Amino acid sequence: MPDRIEEIRAYLNRLFPVCRSITGPGNRETLKVLQEIVPLEIKEYPSSRPVYDWVVPPEWSIREAWIKNPDGQKIVDFDRSNLHVVSYSRPVSGKVSLAELENHLHYRTVLPRAIPYRTSYYREDWGFCLSYEDYQRFFRKEGEYEVLIDSTLEEGALTVGELLVRGDSPREYLISTYFCHPSLANDNLSGVVLTAFLARELSRRKNNFSYRIIFVPETIGAVAYCAHNEAAMKAIDCGFVITSVGGPGRFGYKRSFDPEHVINRIIEQAFQESGIEYLVYPFDIHGSDERQYSSPGFRINMASICKDKYYEYDFYHTSLDNLDFVKPEFIEQSLRLYLDVIGRLDDNLVFVNQQPHCEVMLFRHGLYPKSGGGMLPGRNTSEELDIILWLLFLCDGTASLWQVAEKTGFDFKDIVRVAGMLESRGLLKRIDERMTNQS
Amino acid sequence: MPDRIEEIRAYLNRLFPVCRSITGPGNRETLKVLQEIVPLEIKEYPSSRPVYDWVVPPEWSIREAWIKNPDGQKIVDFDRSNLHVVSYSRPVSGKVSLAELENHLHYRTVLPRAIPYRTSYYREDWGFCLSYEDYQRFFRKEGEYEVLIDSTLEEGALTVGELLVRGDSPREYLISTYFCHPSLANDNLSGVVLTAFLARELSRRKNNFSYRIIFVPETIGAVAYCAHNEAAMKAIDCGFVITSVGGPGRFGYKRSFDPEHVINRIIEQAFQESGIEYLVYPFDIHGSDERQYSSPGFRINMASICKDKYYEYDFYHTSLDNLDFVKPEFIEQSLRLYLDVIGRLDDNLVFVNQQPHCEVMLFRHGLYPKSGGGMLPGRNTSEELDIILWLLFLCDGTASLWQVAEKTGFDFKDIVRVAGMLESRGLLKRIDERMTNQS
Amino acid sequence: MPDRIEEIRAYLNRLFPVCRSITGPGNRETLKVLQEIVPLEIKEYPSSRPVYDWVVPPEWSIREAWIKNPDGQKIVDFDRSNLHVVSYSRPVSGKVSLAELENHLHYRTVLPRAIPYRTSYYREDWGFCLSYEDYQRFFRKEGEYEVLIDSTLEEGALTVGELLVRGDSPREYLISTYFCHPSLANDNLSGVVLTAFLARELSRRKNNFSYRIIFVPETIGAVAYCAHNEAAMKAIDCGFVITSVGGPGRFGYKRSFDPEHVINRIIEQAFQESGIEYLVYPFDIHGSDERQYSSPGFRINMASICKDKYYEYDFYHTSLDNLDFVKPEFIEQSLRLYLDVIGRLDDNLVFVNQQPHCEVMLFRHGLYPKSGGGMLPGRNTSEELDIILWLLFLCDGTASLWQVAEKTGFDFKDIVRVAGMLESRGLLKRIDERMTNQS
Repeated sequence: MPDRIEEIRAYLNRLFPVCRSITGPGNRETLKVLQEIVPLEIKEYPSSRPVYDWVVPPEWSIREAWIKNPDGQKIVDFDRSNLHVVSYSRPVSGKVSLAELENHLHYRTVLPRAIPYRTSYYREDWGFCLSYEDYQRFFRKEGEYEVLIDSTLEEGALTVGELLVRGDSPREYLISTYFCHPSLANDNLSGVVLTAFLARELSRRKNNFSYRIIFVPETIGAVAYCAHNEAAMKAIDCGFVITSVGGPGRFGYKRSFDPEHVINRIIEQAFQESGIEYLVYPFDIHGSDERQYSSPGFRINMASICKDKYYEYDFYHTSLDNLDFVKPEFIEQSLRLYLDVIGRLDDNLVFVNQQPHCEVMLFRHGLYPKSGGGMLPGRNTSEELDIILWLLFLCDGTASLWQVAEKTGFDFKDIVRVAGMLESRGLLKRIDERMTNQS
Repeated sequence: MPDRIEEIRAYLNRLFPVCRSITGPGNRETLKVLQEIVPLEIKEYPSSRPVYDWVVPPEWSIREAWIKNPDGQKIVDFDRSNLHVVSYSRPVSGKVSLAELENHLHYRTVLPRAIPYRTSYYREDWGFCLSYEDYQRFFRKEGEYEVLIDSTLEEGALTVGELLVRGDSPREYLISTYFCHPSLANDNLSGVVLTAFLARELSRRKNNFSYRIIFVPETIGAVAYCAHNEAAMKAIDCGFVITSVGGPGRFGYKRSFDPEHVINRIIEQAFQESGIEYLVYPFDIHGSDERQYSSPGFRINMASICKDKYYEYDFYHTSLDNLDFVKPEFIEQSLRLYLDVIGRLDDNLVFVNQQPHCEVMLFRHGLYPKSGGGMLPGRNTSEELDIILWLLFLCDGTASLWQVAEKTGFDFKDIVRVAGMLESRGLLKRIDERMTNQS
Repeated sequence: MPDRIEEIRAYLNRLFPVCRSITGPGNRETLKVLQEIVPLEIKEYPSSRPVYDWVVPPEWSIREAWIKNPDGQKIVDFDRSNLHVVSYSRPVSGKVSLAELENHLHYRTVLPRAIPYRTSYYREDWGFCLSYEDYQRFFRKEGEYEVLIDSTLEEGALTVGELLVRGDSPREYLISTYFCHPSLANDNLSGVVLTAFLARELSRRKNNFSYRIIFVPETIGAVAYCAHNEAAMKAIDCGFVITSVGGPGRFGYKRSFDPEHVINRIIEQAFQESGIEYLVYPFDIHGSDERQYSSPGFRINMASICKDKYYEYDFYHTSLDNLDFVKPEFIEQSLRLYLDVIGRLDDNLVFVNQQPHCEVMLFRHGLYPKSGGGMLPGRNTSEELDIILWLLFLCDGTASLWQVAEKTGFDFKDIVRVAGMLESRGLLKRIDERMTNQS
């Protein structure tokens, strides 16, 4: 799909430079650009309102920020990279000694050319991030350094984007991504862009289930969204946190908290059938917004398919996680995987045999092999007939199609196809049961 | 038991030639002969009545059927074998070309001397079956062949036989056999005769449970019986479909749908204790009337103990499945196995300790070892005492005697005997719980 | 703890000679001595009253008992060892022939110097126990032997001791020992003394749960206690029968009836962490008062930690089970093990996250690592933080702290400590659920 790859490339280029945070104008701008792809509804949650154990923070804006050396030369400049300023830095202006300034400088010795990414959302502070090389080069002189951070922290709102894609069933799966990171490509501009294109694809398909697709700032955005949509979120069984899907490294997935959940098994099957080698990251209490969605109050099984998963690649949370590292081809490959997995999940219906007492009369429904004398397995019967018989036998409302596949060993897609055929003849009927951990 | 073997031989000889089908006079005649063995109640389900997804078919009678070659010689004659006519063939009379006739001839090249067994219950048709050798010998000449099938398909009834053997508990086990096959000895005259003798034995015994023993035409007969006895059938937990029990080949059993069900474990134990090697056929959606009884509406765990199981032996559904192949000695051997298995199943009671708080005072009940100083396991205690103590410990209404045997490792028969002794002293009391999959 | 060892030694010496049985003055005397250690409440259950399947027996007292040979010499004398008389011997006085006397003599050939321990609680009888050496030496002469047993069997009472140690929660664990054995040191004076000191320690601690600590005659005492405290006993999930804890041999424990119960797992963990090799005795229907407490009416999971378990050591139930065999040091070692195990059990609370929707805001509660930019597992996070996060994730009321430890692999004691810290901040709240088999 070269067109889609080019589309992805264009959006990466447009969105990469935008200065995003957990609130602020860069976030609104990002969602507005994404609305070109899908009709996201934009919601604003006002500052200072409590959301569970949290409070929506003031809105952060930044216009300009730099450090000048004692000679008056700008040695660090927000205009060159929005990573240079610790996110949520309070305004500051004036001259400081090098000793004092050092307390506000962040760099990493292990990647000496990379600007690290730092935030200080909940502790009032200010700071600059820079490469270790720049630190060594520009901060040798004693003397007074002039610093400016022209930022504001004011009452405003936290912005989220939402798209509800309605399917035949009102039961929803959750698809969530976070867009609070500034110029960081894999974590998580890749996830933001993939989610937008995934939303477009799902909107164009006819789906069995519904999809709640959300763009939130990580943590506080997920918390605020849950607080504003509690009942709907409690009704969801599983879904995906989409993040770090565009690196050059290996595919992998982070399991949801119940390792036996069908979402994990479907992901592994999709990987295996597409011949992609993959890493398995067990569920961990560290991670992304599954920490909110899987908490005791919601217990949504959330999985993440990644290509160069956050935490795991060297450039994680540095300026080297840029568009040299992330490629639209990788994102498009991840997108196809997500579409495959979600397609299988969407197909995992629960049917009930409408004629539960004894067998259906196959002949009457045009399903019986031609020659009589009893069916001779493997002689005058077909795999399709076997699937028909097993579906009618197992579909008593306790087994999803996935479970039928696991019990019988037949291919899931063949089972889905035959179940659809039996549904069209009125022999099976969908029930709208919530997929549980056992499904 | 030479007498019983001779009895079986006599009934095989009388019943083998009778032309049975899913309906018709041969079926009534068969049940009438079986009434000499046990007082079967005969029930008739009228034609054209719907039974679940099915309709009771018209009754089929046949008096005469043959093919004459262009020279007027009878080359196929129903009088010589009732397998020569496709069961449920509509009447036909007149001359047909060889080319047209070929569409109505059935033979098998792999067993060139065998007449295959064919039916056409639900598609109106007619046809002849013959050996491949006869086909090659008699159908070389072009020309007009005269065919006659003097059959009728008229409103009538489907005939079933039923015997309810009442035990102490109204809880029933199901024993079902099918008698719709014409002159085929292993499948299933062997099962029909065995079931009649099994019914006679059970009628003469004192049983803990009740037995619903039925003779039905396969599939439609089982469906019709279920429809006419729905509530009773829904209350049954497990049972047997008795079929192909008289061949010279190996013993084996087809498992019920829940492989852990006690019925499967009891069968394996009976095989093992009698030193008989046996094959295990996993549950499959193809098979016999377990397809009806195990369907979602009933979910009865049905197993079949076989000697030369249907599908598996070369002569299956051909004229070579005759009384040269099947021997009364084999049927009698299978009968003894069934009696053994059913005896164990009948013994698998659930008891409740009537003195659940603390131990019973063994001394008071005459159950205590003579010398005091505490019981010294293995020194002044006996295996019987151990069984007593374990039964009193485990019998809280959740464990059947079979489960007690599995938990403790004691012999099931010893447990049954000791439980009976404790029951007679009022220490244990039977509860009439349905045996579930877990029992 | 040399002081405690000396205390134990003193009580062993005082209590060893007392003639105990299932009733009688020696039992009252024993409990009175134990009241010096802990304020036991003494309860008397009157003779002849039915308790479940049993009846409280008459009270037995004995003042004097001997056998004189035909020469008038005392050859067996109760004054030298209370094991010489079969417990509950009826009074007897007069001359008997050697032949008749032989029916009333008990000795063991395998330990020729040991006096065996014998009882005849429920069959009216009398008898003497002596070493095989004494038997051979003193009973060669034919002639009349004079015997005296100056005992009484009269209406009285069965005596038990009870201490209820109240903790924060009214939920109780059961600690039971039996004190019906006369001068036998390991079985079970060791258990009696250990239990008294254990009770003292628990009384001095602040406990999460409550402890029902009882001293009963084995079997009939446990039965009578259950009958008089049925509701309280039915509410108990698990506990210990304390017996044979002072031998020189190996440690071991007898499992409760549910091998997966947390009590068994905690015992094994305590053994392993203290580096003690131990034997595992599976649950068996023979044993001590778990036979009563684990019976269907109560189903309390009772375990026993032993050092030279009853049944297993050579001197079991003989006069060689004396204070040369049992050492206070061993009892003290067993006591420490019991305190360790009970401490863990006491810590196995069930908590509920009070902020179940999404994560708590760690920063607000002073629990967040200093530098922002997301938590980097293993870099700026600590094991303590991980435990905090897992506890908040898993504590939904279904998992005990023990289960949290098993799921996460963190040390149980660390989990207990962190849970306490979170409770003190109001983030976790104890629920007073009964620990079930699954806990």
